[in-house]
Amino acid sequence: MKKTELKNVVIAQSGGPSMVINQSLIGAVLALRRRAGIGSILGARHGIVGILNGDYVDLRKPTEKKLLAIAATPSSALGSCRKKPNAEDCRTIFERFRELNVGYFFYIGGNDSADAARIVADEAKKAKYNLTVYHIPKTIDNDLRSCDHTPGFGSAARFVASAIKGDNLDNRALGGVKIDVIMGRDAGFLTAASALARERCDDGPHLIYLPEVPFSLEKFGDDIKKAMAKFGRAVVAVSEGIRDEQGRSIGAMLSDGEKDSHGNVQMSGTGALGDYLAKYLKANCEIKRVRADTFGYLQRSFPGVASNVDSKEAFEVGQAAVKFAFEGKIKKGTVAICRASKAAYRVTYKALPIQRAAKFTKSMPKNYIASSGNDVTKAFIDYVSPIVGKLPKCEIF
Amino acid sequence: MKKTELKNVVIAQSGGPSMVINQSLIGAVLALRRRAGIGSILGARHGIVGILNGDYVDLRKPTEKKLLAIAATPSSALGSCRKKPNAEDCRTIFERFRELNVGYFFYIGGNDSADAARIVADEAKKAKYNLTVYHIPKTIDNDLRSCDHTPGFGSAARFVASAIKGDNLDNRALGGVKIDVIMGRDAGFLTAASALARERCDDGPHLIYLPEVPFSLEKFGDDIKKAMAKFGRAVVAVSEGIRDEQGRSIGAMLSDGEKDSHGNVQMSGTGALGDYLAKYLKANCEIKRVRADTFGYLQRSFPGVASNVDSKEAFEVGQAAVKFAFEGKIKKGTVAICRASKAAYRVTYKALPIQRAAKFTKSMPKNYIASSGNDVTKAFIDYVSPIVGKLPKCEIF
Repeated sequence: MKKTELKNVVIAQSGGPSMVINQSLIGAVLALRRRAGIGSILGARHGIVGILNGDYVDLRKPTEKKLLAIAATPSSALGSCRKKPNAEDCRTIFERFRELNVGYFFYIGGNDSADAARIVADEAKKAKYNLTVYHIPKTIDNDLRSCDHTPGFGSAARFVASAIKGDNLDNRALGGVKIDVIMGRDAGFLTAASALARERCDDGPHLIYLPEVPFSLEKFGDDIKKAMAKFGRAVVAVSEGIRDEQGRSIGAMLSDGEKDSHGNVQMSGTGALGDYLAKYLKANCEIKRVRADTFGYLQRSFPGVASNVDSKEAFEVGQAAVKFAFEGKIKKGTVAICRASKAAYRVTYKALPIQRAAKFTKSMPKNYIASSGNDVTKAFIDYVSPIVGKLPKCEIF
Repeated sequence: MKKTELKNVVIAQSGGPSMVINQSLIGAVLALRRRAGIGSILGARHGIVGILNGDYVDLRKPTEKKLLAIAATPSSALGSCRKKPNAEDCRTIFERFRELNVGYFFYIGGNDSADAARIVADEAKKAKYNLTVYHIPKTIDNDLRSCDHTPGFGSAARFVASAIKGDNLDNRALGGVKIDVIMGRDAGFLTAASALARERCDDGPHLIYLPEVPFSLEKFGDDIKKAMAKFGRAVVAVSEGIRDEQGRSIGAMLSDGEKDSHGNVQMSGTGALGDYLAKYLKANCEIKRVRADTFGYLQRSFPGVASNVDSKEAFEVGQAAVKFAFEGKIKKGTVAICRASKAAYRVTYKALPIQRAAKFTKSMPKNYIASSGNDVTKAFIDYVSPIVGKLPKCEIF
């Protein structure tokens, strides 16, 4: 191909899927299809792996109707990966990109995916390969430093709050202690969102444990005993990322140590942490009925429960990435979601340098965590409510 | 109170909650409120426990609007229990019933609850206490011998099929083996309903393991290897009730042996079975990415996903119980749901002697299980589809 030909675009998805990551993909694809002066729009299957293998979907082909149906479908329609590219991978990527005359690369994912895209961008500069790289934010953990909140979080939070709502009623009926383990490797936002399940002052979750607050089994036992004394039962939301006083992840210590190429230990997809906590309570707190559920992958993939606000924003963030990439002010960028006003909920989108989203994560701010260390504040509820939307009311006698 | 006064009614809920057990409660209560010649309508809190303790809700008081909101709310609004009454309990029950002039007792639950109601009915006869007893069927396991299908099953099946639909897409994106452990102590109906998640011929669940088919780890490993070779990935639906060649429950062997008063070992509320199977695959089948989720209590309590058909039938079965109890043809009865026609789905309700629902359970009929032993047949899909209703479509590239 000649250099004078129209530049082509590659877009891909990476990291853990979400209920709305396809909204971002399709938001970007439709914006690209409506833009003049672009060649092919290629969707790489399984992120960087698809680029390395030359495995692409032609995104000009599907009808708009089909694309909108994909947008409303959970999980990553192009497939995903958890690959951190090294210098050799990048050389291969640029060879492939040269053959395909790729000038624009969009990568949808969380902080690790942003870091992967940053590495590609940095290596492209070194290799003098002219490439505009945009990271499109996604993560149910809500832990990107660049965003007020991340696409995917609101829908996962909606699933979690709904699940705890139902589970609280189940616990009302049969009593005892119910432990629910919720995703969030480094940040407690998703576990904290369980607080939205409360309608009445005695509704669960009665206790909330976050990675941001050092966890001790003894304190946990004492908290549970107090809750049992007060409510006669206890629904407990526990983040999979809880850490001991030394900052060691309890879930990771219980796991078999499987790591991805970004160095993250597997924590989801096992019931080990919940079972460990339930066993402790049965053995040490004289509570007969203790049950533990781990919400697992349902939190990010269950169809039909996505938050409307989250779906809309995920779509818009994809569109915004295309707009910013072709404006060209920031060539290696990420799209930030900013809350425009605290009074009436409204967001704006802003381009930021890609490193602002990459690698490192954001924790729950201190003012969102109750001084007890086992609950959230009103400030957090005010922050999270508009993103999740209204939940179905549950009536009791 | 004098014997000439109007007879009062006690109604209660027992066993595991479901998404629509309150439909049956409110169906019965509204039918009772519209009927002349009845005194108080008393809801006992936590089943038989509430009768023993004299803990009642006055069900004439709430507005119809409130009652209908409770009907649409998951879990057992009156609270539940897992108590099998002994002869002494029954003596206390009749003392309490005499004081309250109770002539009718309705008990909503599964086979154990039907057995509890049968015991009360039998003991009442011995004690010459004049009592009409009706069991109102409920169980997400779908294992009552008296019913074509049970209220609660369709909604739990809807949750399971939706969850597997999303999880199948998640597995498409990231690959490997995903094990999902689904409720069902004795019968595989709920696990089998995961098959409704399939839209395309390569969609999961790729393997389905039921309590009705003896389970061997070796065969399981072989099946998984074959599925990996065929699909490059595998989504596996496993019943919590799977049994080895000797008929021993594998989940029960892994549990700490906690039993309820009907002799059932705790299996739900722990991730042990899923983790056990995942560990086996990692160690013996050279598959790198293996994850296991246990759907747990969400299957029976998640708000907003109930099946419309199931909700309607659960309400009607409550109404039917009241009609049959006052007709008086069968004094110790249960309500059977019968499928009236195979062509166009339609059900009728019938009174049967209570022992027809009590104690023993129904397994999946052989013609619903594929000859491979790890899948279901078209006959099962035809049976289950109308009860669950249409699921949201998921689009892929």
